[in-house]
Amino acid sequence: MASSTEEFESVEKVLSEHLPAEQLVEVKRLFYGKELQALSIPVEAEKLAVNHDFEIQGFKFEAQTEQLRAPRVIRVGIIQNHIVLPTSASLKAQRDAIHERVATIVEAAALCGVNVLCLQEAWPCPFMFCTREKEPWCELAESADDGPSTHFLQRLCRQYNMVIVSPILERDVDREDILWNTAVVISHTGRVLGKHRKNHIPRIGDFNESTYYMEGDTGHPVFETKFGRIAVNICYGRHHPLNWLMFGLNGAEIVFNPSATVGKLSEPLWGIEARNAAIANGYFTFAINRVGTELYPNEFSSGNGQPAHKDFGHFYGSSYVAAPDGSRTPGLSRVRDGLMVAELDLNICRQMRDYWGFQMTQRLPLYAQSLHKYLSPGYKQQIIKEK
Amino acid sequence: MASSTEEFESVEKVLSEHLPAEQLVEVKRLFYGKELQALSIPVEAEKLAVNHDFEIQGFKFEAQTEQLRAPRVIRVGIIQNHIVLPTSASLKAQRDAIHERVATIVEAAALCGVNVLCLQEAWPCPFMFCTREKEPWCELAESADDGPSTHFLQRLCRQYNMVIVSPILERDVDREDILWNTAVVISHTGRVLGKHRKNHIPRIGDFNESTYYMEGDTGHPVFETKFGRIAVNICYGRHHPLNWLMFGLNGAEIVFNPSATVGKLSEPLWGIEARNAAIANGYFTFAINRVGTELYPNEFSSGNGQPAHKDFGHFYGSSYVAAPDGSRTPGLSRVRDGLMVAELDLNICRQMRDYWGFQMTQRLPLYAQSLHKYLSPGYKQQIIKEK
Repeated sequence: MASSTEEFESVEKVLSEHLPAEQLVEVKRLFYGKELQALSIPVEAEKLAVNHDFEIQGFKFEAQTEQLRAPRVIRVGIIQNHIVLPTSASLKAQRDAIHERVATIVEAAALCGVNVLCLQEAWPCPFMFCTREKEPWCELAESADDGPSTHFLQRLCRQYNMVIVSPILERDVDREDILWNTAVVISHTGRVLGKHRKNHIPRIGDFNESTYYMEGDTGHPVFETKFGRIAVNICYGRHHPLNWLMFGLNGAEIVFNPSATVGKLSEPLWGIEARNAAIANGYFTFAINRVGTELYPNEFSSGNGQPAHKDFGHFYGSSYVAAPDGSRTPGLSRVRDGLMVAELDLNICRQMRDYWGFQMTQRLPLYAQSLHKYLSPGYKQQIIKEK
Repeated sequence: MASSTEEFESVEKVLSEHLPAEQLVEVKRLFYGKELQALSIPVEAEKLAVNHDFEIQGFKFEAQTEQLRAPRVIRVGIIQNHIVLPTSASLKAQRDAIHERVATIVEAAALCGVNVLCLQEAWPCPFMFCTREKEPWCELAESADDGPSTHFLQRLCRQYNMVIVSPILERDVDREDILWNTAVVISHTGRVLGKHRKNHIPRIGDFNESTYYMEGDTGHPVFETKFGRIAVNICYGRHHPLNWLMFGLNGAEIVFNPSATVGKLSEPLWGIEARNAAIANGYFTFAINRVGTELYPNEFSSGNGQPAHKDFGHFYGSSYVAAPDGSRTPGLSRVRDGLMVAELDLNICRQMRDYWGFQMTQRLPLYAQSLHKYLSPGYKQQIIKEK
C-alpha cells in the first residue's frame, strides 16, 4: 500500500476542504444521513488532548420529544489508540505504557461527561495474533475478574462514575487455562458486571486468531447498566448479521464493536457493516478500530504469496457512531489517537422501531423454521430449474 | 424537501468535478471499494440512449483466474424509469406507454449484450399504494403466468435470448383473486420459470402496501437460469438481513432488489443495505429504484401531521451494483431514466467466500437454536443486571 494512502487522515476533511457549500450538504446527507450537531468539548479536555496529542470529536443524536416518556440522554465514548512501546519491550512495560496512555484519554472522557466508555479490541496488547507465536504473547492473557487491566479500570470506573467496556485477551483460570477474546463490562461501581466472549473468529490475512482461541460460549448477553442496555459485538462478529440480530433480540440499545482491522483488508467495508446493523436492529452502534502500524520482532508470512515481513499493515482508526435512523458521525482520524463522544437520547431506538417497523415485520418464525430445515439432514436448496 | 435536493443529479459527479485527482482516488476507495473498469458501450446503444433520453453506465467486476474452473462471465442489466403518462390517463394507456418505454431500454440492454435483466418494482404501474384507493388501481394487477406484462416480456426474452425479471402487482386468479407483490422470472426461452412473492411488507410513510397485499408465501426461491443462479429480494425486504441470508443459503449468486423508495425516507440508507448484503452473503446485489415524482388524481394524507397532497415525493433512482468484495458501481442518475450494465465473473462469489470465510464461521446451529428459544413461550432475554 502506498504510504500516501496510509497517511491520508480523514475523508471528511477532504470533502469539507474541496466541495462548495451547497454540494457538501447534499454529499453529507447521502453519505452520513441527517446532520448532527457538534457537542461542545470542555476546555480542560481540549487542553489534555493538545498536550497529549490526541483528537476529540463529539456529536449529539437528538430524539423527538415524547409526551409519556422522559428523555434518556447519556454520553457514550469510544477510544482508539496506538500501542506505546515497541513490541520488543518487556511485556510488563508494554502493558503499563498502554495503561498510562489510555488513562489520560479516559480522563478526557470523564471531563466530557462520558457515562459509558468502550476501549478497542485487546486494548492492553499489541495485536500480536499475526505472528502465530504462542511465546511470549500468551503471557498477556489476563483473568477477566481479577487481571491487572480489570483492576486498573475498576479504579477509573469508581473515580469517574463510568461504565467501561474492556476488551482483553482472557485467561480462563478456572477452565484449564484456556484463552478467549473477551469484553469485560465493568460497572460504574467498579464491580465486574459480566463478560462476553467473541462469537466469530476470523481466519483471514494476518488475523490468525483461531490459533489462539475458539468461538465464544457466552451467547449474546446484554448488560443492563445504570445508563442503558449495552452489548459487545467483538471485531469479526460485525460481518455476521445474525450476531447483531441476537443482541437486539436480547434488548440492547447500544452495541459496541471493538475491532482491530487494517486498510488493505476491510476499509471500504468499515462504514457499511456497523451502520447497517444500527439501521436493521434499531439500536446505536459504536465501531472502534485501533491506529498505527505495529512491527514485530520476528518476521511472519501472510499466506498471500508475498515475502515474510514484520509489520501488520496500517490499522486505520476511523472509529465512528451510527444511529438507528442511519445517521452517523464522521470517523476519527485514520492516523491519530482519539476520543469520540456521542450524546444520545436512547429514546431514538424505540422511535425508529415504531417508524420503520422492521422488528414487527421481520417474520422470525419463518426464519427459525427455515434455518432449522436448512440444518436438517437431507435439506435441498429451494432451487427452481429449467425443465 | 427543497427542489435543489430533488434535482441533485449524482453524488459521484460532484466528487469528480471538485476533488483533486489524488484525493478523489482515496475518497472513491473508501466509499466505493476496489476501482472498477468501465465497460465500453456499443455505439448503437449510445445512440438509442441519446435519442430516447436515458443514461447508460457499464462496469466490469473481474475475478482472479482459477486453475481448475473456467471463468463464468455474464452481463447483467437493471433499468430504472419514470412512469410515462399522467396517472389520470386510462389504465391501459398508462401501461402501454410504460411497456413501450421499457422496450426501448431493453433493446439497448440487448445491444450491450445483457444476459439477465431486472426491471423496477411494480414496473407496469405507477406506485399507487400511497393513495389507499382500491379503485381503479387494483385493476392493474395481472396474472403472473398469463398477464399482459408477462406476455409482453416473453417476446423480448425470446427475441434477445435474455432472462428478464418482471416485478408486478400480481392477481392470483386461482386463489380467490387475491393480490401479491410478485417478481416473475421469465427464461431466455420465453417460458415463465417461476415467481417470488415479496416477503416483507412496509407500513411506513406513503408505503401503504399492506392495504393491498400480504406477506409472500413463496419462501426464498433461487432460479437456476442458463446464465447463473438468481433470486429477488423485493424492496422493503432489503431492510431484513435474514431475507438476504436465506437467498444465499439457497444458492443465489445474484440477488436483485427491485424497489420504489423516496428521498426523504430512505436515501442515506440506500447505499448501505444492498451492499452490506453482498458482503455478508458472498453474492452480487443489484439495487433498483424508480425515478421521478408521481402525482395522483385525488389527494391523500401521509400520517405525518402534514396537509393532504397529491404527490409521492421524489423517487431518487440511484440504482447500483455491489459485489461480494464490497466494491460497488456509482449510482445511476437521481433524476433520469437509465440502464446499468455489469459484466461480472460469477466465480468472484466463491473466491470471496473462501477469502473471508463468513459462511464457514457463521455458526448457524447457534442461531437456529437461539431463534427457536426466543420464539418459545416464557423466553427471557439474556440480560445481566447489577445486583
